[in-house]
Amino acid sequence: MNKGKLFVFTGPSGTGKGTILKEVLASDDRLRLSVSATTRGPREGEVNGVHYWFLKKEDFEAKIAQDAFLEHACYVGNYYGTPEQPVNDQLAAGYDVVLEIEVQGAMQIHEKRPDAVMVFVAPPSLEELSDRLHGRGTESEKKIAARLATAEQELKYADRFDYVIVNDDLQEAIGDLRAILRAERCRVAHELG
Amino acid sequence: MNKGKLFVFTGPSGTGKGTILKEVLASDDRLRLSVSATTRGPREGEVNGVHYWFLKKEDFEAKIAQDAFLEHACYVGNYYGTPEQPVNDQLAAGYDVVLEIEVQGAMQIHEKRPDAVMVFVAPPSLEELSDRLHGRGTESEKKIAARLATAEQELKYADRFDYVIVNDDLQEAIGDLRAILRAERCRVAHELG
Repeated sequence: MNKGKLFVFTGPSGTGKGTILKEVLASDDRLRLSVSATTRGPREGEVNGVHYWFLKKEDFEAKIAQDAFLEHACYVGNYYGTPEQPVNDQLAAGYDVVLEIEVQGAMQIHEKRPDAVMVFVAPPSLEELSDRLHGRGTESEKKIAARLATAEQELKYADRFDYVIVNDDLQEAIGDLRAILRAERCRVAHELG
Repeated sequence: MNKGKLFVFTGPSGTGKGTILKEVLASDDRLRLSVSATTRGPREGEVNGVHYWFLKKEDFEAKIAQDAFLEHACYVGNYYGTPEQPVNDQLAAGYDVVLEIEVQGAMQIHEKRPDAVMVFVAPPSLEELSDRLHGRGTESEKKIAARLATAEQELKYADRFDYVIVNDDLQEAIGDLRAILRAERCRVAHELG
């Protein structure tokens, strides 16, 4: 029996979910971040085992074959996945665990772990998201267009989640996520129907 | 279609639910308190229409016959009830409405309004509750014994609620209720079923 609670935190790329989660993790000692594995190359400043486990494509596929992932997805040409064992270990130790994953992977978790609390971060609008992605200045127009097309599809899944945080004010969004964690710790576990 | 959300806030007598709710109401301008009706006499400082609508027994029973209550209950020899129309009016106006009611009445709401968010305040223990009731110094031993016996029965309902707040620290309990309200405002409405 798990003592901790599993949270899935997702949303389209560029909605600020990483920033929100970083702030909340820094002030919540019951919450642990699950480190995902990926085959994409590290961005500047990203450390193996901290931000991601950076794997070669063949290693990732071997782990898929071993059923070692809680979820995995292919996104913009790269694999992303959540190694299952570390998550279960943290939950058993009494920590809440949060997965910051892509929407495609989140829906897999929803099937596999119906007890997971599903949180979706949405941009105020697609126009606002476009502005933010351009503002980053790290990607080509072509990549941004692909991200926006993906975001439009992903937003259709929002109403399947337990909670939606609309990030139009970063501090408010951080407060919303903190409130969700705190409220869920008061929540009574009922039999899933 | 209601725009606001209905919250039911209950727990055994002496658990501090009134104190918690008063603090939260003072700092939340989207939340309105439903004023209950009762046939019990006003305590010192209680104002008709603010703390309760103080009704005569025959008037209360006439309103029961008119089906004008969202819930009503008889508790320690007095009627308590929630007039339905004012609640619906506030919800339609976009306010969240909280009912502070007895456990017996809360279970009626749960049946009648399955969309209501059910919050239960529990004492850390029955021993602690006994200490608090004695500490109040406002009631006879006999009344306190009756309240404790009722509390023991009421605690059995806690796991039918959506949230349980254990009030062992008042400020923490206030923070929990604020978090529950905030989280529920991010919550996605799913079909009940």
